[in-house]
Amino acid sequence: MSHGTGDPLVTLREVNRRAAFNRWCGFVVESASAGQAQLGMDWRDDMGQYAGYLHAGIVGALIDTACGFAAFTVVGEVLASHATVNFLRPAQGRRFIARAVVVKPGRQQSFTRCELFSVGDGGEQLVATGETLLITVPPKQ
Amino acid sequence: MSHGTGDPLVTLREVNRRAAFNRWCGFVVESASAGQAQLGMDWRDDMGQYAGYLHAGIVGALIDTACGFAAFTVVGEVLASHATVNFLRPAQGRRFIARAVVVKPGRQQSFTRCELFSVGDGGEQLVATGETLLITVPPKQ
Amino acid sequence: MSHGTGDPLVTLREVNRRAAFNRWCGFVVESASAGQAQLGMDWRDDMGQYAGYLHAGIVGALIDTACGFAAFTVVGEVLASHATVNFLRPAQGRRFIARAVVVKPGRQQSFTRCELFSVGDGGEQLVATGETLLITVPPKQ
Amino acid sequence: MSHGTGDPLVTLREVNRRAAFNRWCGFVVESASAGQAQLGMDWRDDMGQYAGYLHAGIVGALIDTACGFAAFTVVGEVLASHATVNFLRPAQGRRFIARAVVVKPGRQQSFTRCELFSVGDGGEQLVATGETLLITVPPKQ
Repeated sequence: MSHGTGDPLVTLREVNRRAAFNRWCGFVVESASAGQAQLGMDWRDDMGQYAGYLHAGIVGALIDTACGFAAFTVVGEVLASHATVNFLRPAQGRRFIARAVVVKPGRQQSFTRCELFSVGDGGEQLVATGETLLITVPPKQ
Repeated sequence: MSHGTGDPLVTLREVNRRAAFNRWCGFVVESASAGQAQLGMDWRDDMGQYAGYLHAGIVGALIDTACGFAAFTVVGEVLASHATVNFLRPAQGRRFIARAVVVKPGRQQSFTRCELFSVGDGGEQLVATGETLLITVPPKQ
Repeated sequence: MSHGTGDPLVTLREVNRRAAFNRWCGFVVESASAGQAQLGMDWRDDMGQYAGYLHAGIVGALIDTACGFAAFTVVGEVLASHATVNFLRPAQGRRFIARAVVVKPGRQQSFTRCELFSVGDGGEQLVATGETLLITVPPKQ
Repeated sequence: MSHGTGDPLVTLREVNRRAAFNRWCGFVVESASAGQAQLGMDWRDDMGQYAGYLHAGIVGALIDTACGFAAFTVVGEVLASHATVNFLRPAQGRRFIARAVVVKPGRQQSFTRCELFSVGDGGEQLVATGETLLITVPPKQ
Protein backbone atom coordinates (compact mmCIF):
# COMPACT_ATOMS: atom_id res chain seq x y z
CA MET A 1 0.00 0.00 0.00
CA SER A 2 1.13 3.52 -0.58
CA HIS A 3 -0.56 6.29 1.35
CA GLY A 4 -1.17 8.77 -1.43
CA THR A 5 -2.99 12.03 -1.11
CA GLY A 6 -6.39 11.23 -2.54
CA ASP A 7 -9.51 9.49 -1.27
CA PRO A 8 -8.45 6.44 0.81
CA LEU A 9 -11.45 4.53 -0.58
CA VAL A 10 -10.07 4.85 -4.13
CA THR A 11 -6.56 3.85 -3.06
CA LEU A 12 -7.72 0.91 -0.94
CA ARG A 13 -9.92 -0.45 -3.74
CA GLU A 14 -6.84 -0.43 -5.95
CA VAL A 15 -4.76 -2.17 -3.23
CA ASN A 16 -7.57 -4.70 -2.77
CA ARG A 17 -7.54 -5.47 -6.51
CA ARG A 18 -3.79 -6.10 -6.44
CA ALA A 19 -4.10 -8.85 -3.79
CA ALA A 20 -4.78 -12.21 -5.46
CA PHE A 21 -6.36 -13.85 -2.42
CA ASN A 22 -8.61 -10.83 -1.81
CA ARG A 23 -9.87 -11.25 -5.39
CA TRP A 24 -10.48 -14.97 -4.85
CA CYS A 25 -12.46 -14.17 -1.67
CA GLY A 26 -14.37 -11.42 -3.45
CA PHE A 27 -13.58 -8.78 -0.82
CA VAL A 28 -15.28 -5.43 -1.52
CA VAL A 29 -14.03 -2.27 0.20
CA GLU A 30 -17.40 -0.77 1.14
CA SER A 31 -16.13 2.27 2.99
CA ALA A 32 -12.89 3.83 4.17
CA SER A 33 -12.31 7.15 5.87
CA ALA A 34 -10.07 8.56 8.61
CA GLY A 35 -9.63 5.76 11.13
CA GLN A 36 -12.12 3.20 9.79
CA ALA A 37 -12.71 0.73 6.97
CA GLN A 38 -15.47 -1.72 6.08
CA LEU A 39 -15.16 -4.87 3.96
CA GLY A 40 -17.97 -7.02 2.56
CA MET A 41 -17.83 -10.57 1.20
CA ASP A 42 -20.45 -12.95 -0.18
CA TRP A 43 -20.47 -16.53 1.11
CA ARG A 44 -19.47 -19.30 -1.30
CA ASP A 45 -19.46 -23.06 -0.64
CA ASP A 46 -15.70 -23.35 -1.21
CA MET A 47 -15.08 -21.15 1.85
CA GLY A 48 -16.27 -23.76 4.36
CA GLN A 49 -14.55 -25.66 7.15
CA TYR A 50 -15.43 -29.32 7.78
CA ALA A 51 -18.90 -28.56 9.23
CA GLY A 52 -19.80 -26.06 6.49
CA TYR A 53 -19.29 -22.81 8.42
CA LEU A 54 -16.98 -20.03 7.20
CA HIS A 55 -13.38 -21.25 7.67
CA ALA A 56 -11.41 -19.67 10.54
CA GLY A 57 -8.76 -18.64 8.02
CA ILE A 58 -11.24 -16.53 6.07
CA VAL A 59 -12.63 -15.08 9.31
CA GLY A 60 -9.04 -14.05 10.06
CA ALA A 61 -8.44 -12.79 6.51
CA LEU A 62 -11.46 -10.48 6.72
CA ILE A 63 -10.42 -9.11 10.12
CA ASP A 64 -6.72 -8.64 9.26
CA THR A 65 -7.53 -6.99 5.94
CA ALA A 66 -10.12 -4.62 7.40
CA CYS A 67 -7.73 -3.69 10.24
CA GLY A 68 -4.88 -3.05 7.80
CA PHE A 69 -7.12 -0.89 5.63
CA ALA A 70 -8.34 1.11 8.66
CA ALA A 71 -4.72 1.74 9.74
CA PHE A 72 -3.79 2.76 6.17
CA THR A 73 -6.31 5.60 6.28
CA VAL A 74 -4.34 7.16 9.15
CA VAL A 75 -0.68 6.16 8.85
CA GLY A 76 -0.18 4.85 5.31
CA GLU A 77 1.60 1.63 4.46
CA VAL A 78 1.58 -0.95 7.28
CA LEU A 79 2.44 -4.59 7.98
CA ALA A 80 0.65 -6.80 10.53
CA SER A 81 2.81 -7.94 13.47
CA HIS A 82 0.27 -9.69 15.64
CA ALA A 83 -3.36 -10.65 15.21
CA THR A 84 -5.94 -12.16 17.54
CA VAL A 85 -9.40 -13.51 16.73
CA ASN A 86 -12.24 -14.39 19.10
CA PHE A 87 -14.64 -16.91 17.57
CA LEU A 88 -17.91 -16.00 19.27
CA ARG A 89 -20.32 -18.14 17.22
CA PRO A 90 -20.24 -20.47 14.20
CA ALA A 91 -19.89 -18.11 11.22
CA GLN A 92 -22.72 -18.75 8.79
CA GLY A 93 -24.62 -16.40 6.55
CA ARG A 94 -25.17 -15.26 2.97
CA ARG A 95 -22.77 -12.39 3.45
CA PHE A 96 -20.13 -11.15 5.90
CA ILE A 97 -19.20 -7.59 6.90
CA ALA A 98 -15.99 -6.61 8.70
CA ARG A 99 -15.89 -3.21 10.39
CA ALA A 100 -12.49 -2.09 11.66
CA VAL A 101 -11.38 1.00 13.57
CA VAL A 102 -8.06 2.38 14.68
CA VAL A 103 -7.84 2.35 18.48
CA LYS A 104 -4.49 4.17 18.64
CA PRO A 105 -2.36 5.17 15.65
CA GLY A 106 1.35 5.69 16.14
CA ARG A 107 4.53 6.59 14.35
CA GLN A 108 6.00 3.12 14.90
CA GLN A 109 2.91 0.96 15.47
CA SER A 110 -0.88 1.18 15.32
CA PHE A 111 -3.53 -0.70 17.30
CA THR A 112 -6.74 -1.66 15.50
CA ARG A 113 -9.92 -3.58 16.32
CA CYS A 114 -12.56 -5.24 14.15
CA GLU A 115 -16.03 -6.75 14.43
CA LEU A 116 -17.19 -9.38 11.95
CA PHE A 117 -20.91 -9.74 11.28
CA SER A 118 -22.80 -12.42 9.36
CA VAL A 119 -25.84 -11.33 7.37
CA GLY A 120 -28.72 -13.76 7.03
CA ASP A 121 -32.51 -13.91 7.25
CA GLY A 122 -32.43 -12.67 10.84
CA GLY A 123 -30.33 -9.59 10.04
CA GLU A 124 -26.78 -8.98 11.21
CA GLN A 125 -25.15 -11.05 13.94
CA LEU A 126 -21.73 -10.52 15.54
CA VAL A 127 -19.77 -13.74 14.88
CA ALA A 128 -16.17 -12.78 15.66
CA THR A 129 -14.02 -9.96 16.96
CA GLY A 130 -10.34 -9.39 16.48
CA GLU A 131 -7.41 -7.09 17.04
CA THR A 132 -4.41 -6.44 14.84
CA LEU A 133 -1.18 -4.64 15.76
CA LEU A 134 0.56 -3.16 12.72
CA ILE A 135 3.93 -1.54 12.20
CA THR A 136 4.43 1.37 9.86
CA VAL A 137 6.52 0.63 6.78
CA PRO A 138 9.06 3.45 6.32
CA PRO A 139 8.51 5.27 2.98
CA LYS A 140 10.98 4.27 0.26
CA GLN A 141 13.58 6.96 -0.51
CA MET B 1 -14.50 -34.11 13.71
CA SER B 2 -15.30 -37.25 15.59
CA HIS B 3 -12.60 -38.81 17.71
CA GLY B 4 -12.94 -42.44 16.71
CA THR B 5 -10.75 -45.24 17.87
CA GLY B 6 -8.40 -45.74 14.93
CA ASP B 7 -5.30 -44.01 13.67
CA PRO B 8 -5.75 -40.22 14.06
CA LEU B 9 -3.88 -39.69 10.78
CA VAL B 10 -6.54 -41.63 8.87
CA THR B 11 -9.39 -39.79 10.62
CA LEU B 12 -7.84 -36.35 10.18
CA ARG B 13 -7.18 -36.93 6.47
CA GLU B 14 -10.88 -37.71 6.12
CA VAL B 15 -11.83 -34.57 8.11
CA ASN B 16 -9.42 -32.53 5.96
CA ARG B 17 -11.11 -33.83 2.79
CA ARG B 18 -14.54 -32.80 4.08
CA ALA B 19 -13.49 -29.13 4.49
CA ALA B 20 -14.00 -27.26 1.21
CA PHE B 21 -11.50 -24.48 1.96
CA ASN B 22 -8.84 -27.00 3.06
CA ARG B 23 -9.26 -28.65 -0.37
CA TRP B 24 -8.95 -25.30 -2.16
CA CYS B 25 -5.74 -24.56 -0.19
CA GLY B 26 -4.42 -28.04 -0.90
CA PHE B 27 -3.71 -28.83 2.77
CA VAL B 28 -2.04 -32.23 3.28
CA VAL B 29 -2.06 -33.86 6.73
CA GLU B 30 1.54 -35.04 6.80
CA SER B 31 1.56 -36.50 10.30
CA ALA B 32 -0.68 -36.81 13.34
CA SER B 33 -0.06 -38.66 16.57
CA ALA B 34 -0.77 -38.15 20.27
CA GLY B 35 -0.44 -34.41 20.89
CA GLN B 36 0.91 -33.25 17.52
CA ALA B 37 -0.05 -32.70 13.89
CA GLN B 38 1.76 -31.43 10.80
CA LEU B 39 0.19 -29.84 7.70
CA GLY B 40 1.88 -29.11 4.37
CA MET B 41 0.74 -26.80 1.56
CA ASP B 42 2.23 -25.82 -1.81
CA TRP B 43 2.32 -22.13 -2.71
CA ARG B 44 0.09 -20.90 -5.53
CA ASP B 45 -0.13 -17.40 -6.97
CA ASP B 46 -3.78 -16.98 -5.99
CA MET B 47 -2.79 -17.16 -2.29
CA GLY B 48 -0.99 -13.81 -2.27
CA GLN B 49 -1.61 -10.54 -0.47
CA TYR B 50 -1.01 -7.23 -2.28
CA ALA B 51 2.80 -7.55 -2.26
CA GLY B 52 2.78 -11.18 -3.37
CA TYR B 53 3.54 -12.88 -0.02
CA LEU B 54 1.29 -15.57 1.48
CA HIS B 55 -1.90 -13.85 2.71
CA ALA B 56 -2.27 -13.44 6.50
CA GLY B 57 -5.59 -15.30 6.26
CA ILE B 58 -3.90 -18.40 4.86
CA VAL B 59 -1.12 -18.11 7.44
CA GLY B 60 -3.90 -18.15 10.04
CA ALA B 61 -5.77 -20.98 8.31
CA LEU B 62 -2.68 -23.21 8.39
CA ILE B 63 -2.03 -22.47 12.07
CA ASP B 64 -5.65 -22.85 13.23
CA THR B 65 -6.10 -26.08 11.29
CA ALA B 66 -2.86 -27.64 12.52
CA CYS B 67 -3.72 -26.64 16.11
CA GLY B 68 -7.23 -28.11 15.84
CA PHE B 69 -5.85 -31.34 14.40
CA ALA B 70 -3.23 -31.61 17.18
CA ALA B 71 -5.94 -31.13 19.82
CA PHE B 72 -8.16 -33.72 18.11
CA THR B 73 -5.50 -36.38 18.59
CA VAL B 74 -5.87 -35.98 22.37
CA VAL B 75 -9.40 -34.82 23.16
CA GLY B 76 -11.50 -35.49 20.04
CA GLU B 77 -13.87 -33.00 18.49
CA VAL B 78 -12.98 -29.34 19.24
CA LEU B 79 -13.92 -25.80 18.23
CA ALA B 80 -11.52 -22.83 18.23
CA SER B 81 -12.38 -20.06 20.73
CA HIS B 82 -9.40 -17.78 20.39
CA ALA B 83 -6.44 -17.64 18.03
CA THR B 84 -3.33 -15.48 17.89
CA VAL B 85 -0.73 -15.18 15.14
CA ASN B 86 2.72 -13.56 15.26
CA PHE B 87 3.92 -12.52 11.81
CA LEU B 88 7.70 -12.83 12.16
CA ARG B 89 8.75 -12.38 8.52
CA PRO B 90 7.11 -11.97 5.10
CA ALA B 91 5.85 -15.46 4.25
CA GLN B 92 7.28 -16.54 0.93
CA GLY B 93 8.36 -19.94 -0.33
CA ARG B 94 7.50 -22.81 -2.62
CA ARG B 95 5.88 -24.70 0.21
CA PHE B 96 4.69 -24.15 3.81
CA ILE B 97 4.72 -26.52 6.78
CA ALA B 98 2.71 -26.00 9.98
CA ARG B 99 3.76 -28.00 13.06
CA ALA B 100 1.37 -27.87 16.01
CA VAL B 101 1.56 -29.35 19.50
CA VAL B 102 -0.82 -29.51 22.45
CA VAL B 103 0.59 -27.47 25.34
CA LYS B 104 -2.12 -28.52 27.83
CA PRO B 105 -5.16 -30.65 27.00
CA GLY B 106 -8.23 -30.39 29.20
CA ARG B 107 -11.74 -31.68 29.65
CA GLN B 108 -13.26 -28.25 28.87
CA GLN B 109 -10.51 -26.54 26.89
CA SER B 110 -7.13 -27.27 25.31
CA PHE B 111 -4.16 -24.98 24.69
CA THR B 112 -2.14 -25.50 21.50
CA ARG B 113 0.81 -23.86 19.77
CA CYS B 114 2.07 -23.91 16.19
CA GLU B 115 5.13 -22.91 14.16
CA LEU B 116 4.81 -22.12 10.46
CA PHE B 117 7.84 -22.63 8.20
CA SER B 118 8.38 -21.61 4.60
CA VAL B 119 10.43 -23.93 2.40
CA GLY B 120 12.58 -22.43 -0.34
CA ASP B 121 16.04 -22.66 -1.84
CA GLY B 122 17.64 -21.85 1.51
CA GLY B 123 15.80 -24.60 3.40
CA GLU B 124 13.17 -24.06 6.09
CA GLN B 125 12.59 -20.68 7.72
CA LEU B 126 10.26 -19.86 10.63
CA VAL B 127 7.81 -17.24 9.29
CA ALA B 128 5.00 -17.21 11.89
CA THR B 129 3.98 -18.64 15.23
CA GLY B 130 0.52 -18.91 16.70
CA GLU B 131 -1.58 -20.20 19.56
CA THR B 132 -5.13 -21.52 19.51
CA LEU B 133 -7.41 -22.16 22.47
CA LEU B 134 -10.06 -24.77 21.72
CA ILE B 135 -13.12 -25.99 23.59
CA THR B 136 -14.17 -29.62 23.55
CA VAL B 137 -17.44 -30.34 21.77
CA PRO B 138 -19.53 -32.66 23.95
CA PRO B 139 -20.19 -36.01 22.18
CA LYS B 140 -23.68 -36.30 20.69
CA GLN B 141 -25.98 -38.63 22.62
CA MET C 1 -16.87 -16.07 43.52
CA SER C 2 -20.35 -17.43 43.92
CA HIS C 3 -23.11 -15.97 41.80
CA GLY C 4 -25.74 -15.44 44.45
CA THR C 5 -29.08 -13.81 43.93
CA GLY C 6 -28.52 -10.33 45.29
CA ASP C 7 -26.96 -7.16 43.97
CA PRO C 8 -23.76 -8.07 42.06
CA LEU C 9 -22.10 -4.92 43.41
CA VAL C 10 -22.49 -6.17 47.00
CA THR C 11 -21.24 -9.65 46.12
CA LEU C 12 -18.28 -8.39 44.08
CA ARG C 13 -17.17 -5.99 46.82
CA GLU C 14 -17.11 -8.99 49.17
CA VAL C 15 -15.12 -11.05 46.60
CA ASN C 16 -12.74 -8.11 46.14
CA ARG C 17 -12.15 -7.94 49.92
CA ARG C 18 -11.28 -11.66 50.02
CA ALA C 19 -8.44 -11.27 47.47
CA ALA C 20 -5.21 -10.34 49.24
CA PHE C 21 -3.53 -8.75 46.21
CA ASN C 22 -6.66 -6.73 45.37
CA ARG C 23 -6.47 -5.28 48.91
CA TRP C 24 -2.77 -4.48 48.49
CA CYS C 25 -3.55 -2.69 45.21
CA GLY C 26 -6.48 -0.89 46.79
CA PHE C 27 -8.96 -1.95 44.10
CA VAL C 28 -12.44 -0.42 44.59
CA VAL C 29 -15.44 -1.94 42.80
CA GLU C 30 -17.09 1.28 41.67
CA SER C 31 -19.98 -0.23 39.73
CA ALA C 32 -21.28 -3.61 38.63
CA SER C 33 -24.49 -4.47 36.83
CA ALA C 34 -25.62 -6.90 34.14
CA GLY C 35 -22.69 -7.26 31.74
CA GLN C 36 -20.35 -4.58 33.09
CA ALA C 37 -18.06 -3.73 35.97
CA GLN C 38 -15.82 -0.77 36.85
CA LEU C 39 -12.75 -0.81 39.11
CA GLY C 40 -10.83 2.18 40.45
CA MET C 41 -7.35 2.32 41.96
CA ASP C 42 -5.18 5.13 43.33
CA TRP C 43 -1.57 5.33 42.17
CA ARG C 44 1.16 4.61 44.74
CA ASP C 45 4.92 4.79 44.23
CA ASP C 46 5.43 1.09 44.97
CA MET C 47 3.40 0.21 41.84
CA GLY C 48 6.03 1.45 39.38
CA GLN C 49 8.16 -0.24 36.78
CA TYR C 50 11.77 0.83 36.24
CA ALA C 51 10.87 4.17 34.61
CA GLY C 52 8.22 5.05 37.20
CA TYR C 53 5.06 4.25 35.18
CA LEU C 54 2.39 1.81 36.38
CA HIS C 55 3.85 -1.72 36.12
CA ALA C 56 2.52 -3.90 33.29
CA GLY C 57 1.54 -6.49 35.87
CA ILE C 58 -0.80 -4.07 37.63
CA VAL C 59 -2.18 -2.91 34.29
CA GLY C 60 -2.97 -6.58 33.63
CA ALA C 61 -4.33 -7.12 37.16
CA LEU C 62 -6.81 -4.26 36.74
CA ILE C 63 -7.97 -5.51 33.33
CA ASP C 64 -8.25 -9.19 34.33
CA THR C 65 -10.09 -8.37 37.53
CA ALA C 66 -12.55 -5.99 35.88
CA CYS C 67 -13.20 -8.55 33.10
CA GLY C 68 -13.79 -11.34 35.63
CA PHE C 69 -16.16 -9.15 37.62
CA ALA C 70 -18.09 -8.17 34.46
CA ALA C 71 -18.46 -11.86 33.51
CA PHE C 72 -19.57 -12.72 37.05
CA THR C 73 -22.56 -10.37 36.74
CA VAL C 74 -23.89 -12.56 33.90
CA VAL C 75 -22.67 -16.13 34.39
CA GLY C 76 -21.48 -16.40 38.00
CA GLU C 77 -18.19 -17.94 39.06
CA VAL C 78 -15.51 -17.87 36.33
CA LEU C 79 -11.79 -18.53 35.83
CA ALA C 80 -9.59 -16.72 33.29
CA SER C 81 -8.19 -18.91 30.50
CA HIS C 82 -6.51 -16.37 28.29
CA ALA C 83 -5.79 -12.66 28.60
CA THR C 84 -4.35 -10.09 26.23
CA VAL C 85 -3.25 -6.53 26.94
CA ASN C 86 -2.43 -3.73 24.49
CA PHE C 87 -0.14 -1.12 26.02
CA LEU C 88 -1.17 2.03 24.15
CA ARG C 89 0.73 4.63 26.17
CA PRO C 90 2.94 4.81 29.29
CA ALA C 91 0.48 4.44 32.17
CA GLN C 92 0.85 7.39 34.49
CA GLY C 93 -1.72 9.24 36.57
CA ARG C 94 -3.03 9.85 40.05
CA ARG C 95 -5.73 7.27 39.59
CA PHE C 96 -6.71 4.46 37.19
CA ILE C 97 -10.15 3.27 36.10
CA ALA C 98 -10.86 -0.06 34.40
CA ARG C 99 -14.18 -0.43 32.59
CA ALA C 100 -15.05 -3.95 31.43
CA VAL C 101 -17.97 -5.31 29.43
CA VAL C 102 -19.09 -8.78 28.41
CA VAL C 103 -18.88 -9.14 24.63
CA LYS C 104 -20.49 -12.59 24.53
CA PRO C 105 -21.48 -14.66 27.56
CA GLY C 106 -21.76 -18.41 27.22
CA ARG C 107 -22.54 -21.58 29.12
CA GLN C 108 -18.95 -22.84 28.77
CA GLN C 109 -16.98 -19.65 28.15
CA SER C 110 -17.43 -15.88 28.12
CA PHE C 111 -15.63 -13.20 26.11
CA THR C 112 -14.94 -9.87 27.81
CA ARG C 113 -13.18 -6.62 26.94
CA CYS C 114 -11.79 -3.79 29.05
CA GLU C 115 -10.48 -0.25 28.70
CA LEU C 116 -8.03 1.19 31.23
CA PHE C 117 -7.92 4.94 31.74
CA SER C 118 -5.46 7.06 33.68
CA VAL C 119 -6.79 10.10 35.48
CA GLY C 120 -4.57 13.16 35.79
CA ASP C 121 -4.65 16.92 35.43
CA GLY C 122 -5.74 16.61 31.81
CA GLY C 123 -8.70 14.36 32.60
CA GLU C 124 -9.05 10.74 31.54
CA GLN C 125 -6.76 9.14 28.97
CA LEU C 126 -7.01 5.63 27.49
CA VAL C 127 -3.71 3.91 28.35
CA ALA C 128 -4.43 0.23 27.71
CA THR C 129 -7.06 -2.15 26.38
CA GLY C 130 -7.42 -5.85 26.99
CA GLU C 131 -9.51 -8.91 26.46
CA THR C 132 -10.07 -11.88 28.77
CA LEU C 133 -11.63 -15.23 27.91
CA LEU C 134 -13.13 -16.94 30.96
CA ILE C 135 -14.56 -20.38 31.55
CA THR C 136 -17.53 -20.95 33.80
CA VAL C 137 -16.80 -22.87 36.98
CA PRO C 138 -19.48 -25.55 37.43
CA PRO C 139 -21.48 -24.98 40.64
CA LYS C 140 -20.46 -27.29 43.50
CA GLN C 141 -23.02 -30.04 44.21
CA MET D 1 16.92 0.01 30.63
CA SER D 2 20.05 0.91 28.78
CA HIS D 3 21.83 -1.78 26.80
CA GLY D 4 25.38 -1.19 27.97
CA THR D 5 28.36 -3.23 27.03
CA GLY D 6 28.85 -5.40 30.08
CA ASP D 7 27.27 -8.58 31.40
CA PRO D 8 23.49 -8.39 30.83
CA LEU D 9 22.93 -10.15 34.17
CA VAL D 10 24.62 -7.28 36.03
CA THR D 11 22.70 -4.65 34.09
CA LEU D 12 19.34 -6.40 34.47
CA ARG D 13 19.80 -6.85 38.22
CA GLU D 14 20.34 -3.10 38.42
CA VAL D 15 17.23 -2.44 36.27
CA ASN D 16 15.26 -4.87 38.45
CA ARG D 17 16.31 -2.97 41.60
CA ARG D 18 15.12 0.33 40.09
CA ALA D 19 11.56 -0.97 39.61
CA ALA D 20 9.51 -0.45 42.77
CA PHE D 21 6.93 -3.15 42.02
CA ASN D 22 9.65 -5.68 41.15
CA ARG D 23 11.13 -5.03 44.60
CA TRP D 24 7.73 -5.47 46.27
CA CYS D 25 7.28 -8.78 44.43
CA GLY D 26 10.80 -9.86 45.32
CA PHE D 27 11.77 -10.67 41.73
CA VAL D 28 15.29 -12.13 41.43
CA VAL D 29 17.07 -12.15 38.06
CA GLU D 30 18.48 -15.68 38.20
CA SER D 31 20.08 -15.76 34.76
CA ALA D 32 20.37 -13.62 31.64
CA SER D 33 22.40 -14.24 28.51
CA ALA D 34 22.00 -13.72 24.76
CA GLY D 35 18.31 -14.32 24.01
CA GLN D 36 17.11 -15.60 27.38
CA ALA D 37 16.34 -14.53 30.94
CA GLN D 38 15.05 -16.28 34.06
CA LEU D 39 13.24 -14.70 37.02
CA GLY D 40 12.46 -16.29 40.39
CA MET D 41 9.96 -15.18 43.04
CA ASP D 42 8.95 -16.58 46.43
CA TRP D 43 5.23 -16.89 47.21
CA ARG D 44 3.76 -14.61 49.88
CA ASP D 45 0.19 -14.55 51.16
CA ASP D 46 -0.42 -10.98 49.99
CA MET D 47 -0.01 -12.11 46.35
CA GLY D 48 -3.24 -14.11 46.26
CA GLN D 49 -6.47 -13.78 44.32
CA TYR D 50 -9.81 -14.51 46.01
CA ALA D 51 -9.25 -18.30 46.16
CA GLY D 52 -5.68 -18.01 47.42
CA TYR D 53 -3.79 -18.80 44.20
CA LEU D 54 -1.19 -16.44 42.71
CA HIS D 55 -3.04 -13.42 41.27
CA ALA D 56 -3.32 -13.23 37.47
CA GLY D 57 -1.68 -9.80 37.62
CA ILE D 58 1.46 -11.22 39.23
CA VAL D 59 1.46 -14.12 36.75
CA GLY D 60 1.43 -11.46 34.03
CA ALA D 61 4.06 -9.33 35.81
CA LEU D 62 6.48 -12.28 35.95
CA ILE D 63 5.93 -13.13 32.27
CA ASP D 64 6.14 -9.54 30.98
CA THR D 65 9.24 -8.81 33.02
CA ALA D 66 11.06 -11.99 32.00
CA CYS D 67 10.16 -11.34 28.33
CA GLY D 68 11.39 -7.75 28.51
CA PHE D 69 14.65 -8.85 30.14
CA ALA D 70 15.19 -11.56 27.49
CA ALA D 71 14.65 -8.98 24.72
CA PHE D 72 17.03 -6.55 26.45
CA THR D 73 19.88 -9.06 26.18
CA VAL D 74 19.60 -8.86 22.37
CA VAL D 75 18.27 -5.43 21.39
CA GLY D 76 18.69 -3.19 24.44
CA GLU D 77 15.98 -0.93 25.79
CA VAL D 78 12.44 -2.07 24.93
CA LEU D 79 8.81 -1.31 25.75
CA ALA D 80 5.99 -3.88 25.74
CA SER D 81 3.29 -3.31 23.09
CA HIS D 82 1.16 -6.41 23.47
CA ALA D 83 1.11 -9.28 25.94
CA THR D 84 -0.86 -12.51 26.13
CA VAL D 85 -1.12 -15.01 28.96
CA ASN D 86 -2.51 -18.55 28.93
CA PHE D 87 -3.62 -19.67 32.39
CA LEU D 88 -3.07 -23.44 32.20
CA ARG D 89 -3.61 -24.35 35.86
CA PRO D 90 -4.26 -22.60 39.19
CA ALA D 91 -0.89 -21.09 40.13
CA GLN D 92 0.12 -22.34 43.56
CA GLY D 93 3.53 -23.14 44.98
CA ARG D 94 6.24 -22.00 47.35
CA ARG D 95 8.15 -20.40 44.53
CA PHE D 96 7.68 -19.39 40.88
CA ILE D 97 10.16 -19.39 38.01
CA ALA D 98 9.66 -17.54 34.71
CA ARG D 99 11.86 -18.58 31.77
CA ALA D 100 11.70 -16.32 28.70
CA VAL D 101 13.34 -16.57 25.29
CA VAL D 102 13.47 -14.31 22.26
CA VAL D 103 11.66 -15.95 19.33
CA LYS D 104 12.63 -13.27 16.80
CA PRO D 105 14.54 -10.09 17.56
CA GLY D 106 14.18 -7.12 15.23
CA ARG D 107 15.28 -3.58 14.67
CA GLN D 108 11.76 -2.23 15.25
CA GLN D 109 10.13 -5.00 17.29
CA SER D 110 10.99 -8.26 19.04
CA PHE D 111 8.86 -11.34 19.69
CA THR D 112 9.36 -13.20 22.98
CA ARG D 113 7.83 -16.18 24.77
CA CYS D 114 7.80 -17.30 28.40
CA GLU D 115 6.91 -20.31 30.51
CA LEU D 116 5.95 -19.89 34.16
CA PHE D 117 6.54 -22.79 36.55
CA SER D 118 5.40 -23.27 40.15
CA VAL D 119 7.75 -25.05 42.50
CA GLY D 120 6.27 -27.20 45.26
CA ASP D 121 6.62 -30.58 46.91
CA GLY D 122 6.05 -32.33 43.60
CA GLY D 123 8.78 -30.41 41.78
CA GLU D 124 8.21 -27.92 38.94
CA GLN D 125 4.87 -27.64 37.15
CA LEU D 126 4.05 -25.46 34.13
CA VAL D 127 1.21 -23.15 35.25
CA ALA D 128 1.12 -20.47 32.54
CA THR D 129 2.64 -19.48 29.23
CA GLY D 130 2.75 -16.08 27.61
CA GLU D 131 4.02 -14.03 24.73
CA THR D 132 5.12 -10.39 24.68
CA LEU D 133 5.75 -8.20 21.65
CA LEU D 134 8.15 -5.35 22.40
CA ILE D 135 9.28 -2.31 20.45
CA THR D 136 12.81 -1.03 20.59
CA VAL D 137 13.25 2.34 22.25
CA PRO D 138 15.54 4.50 20.09
CA PRO D 139 18.75 5.41 21.97
CA LYS D 140 18.78 8.97 23.31
CA GLN D 141 21.07 11.32 21.39
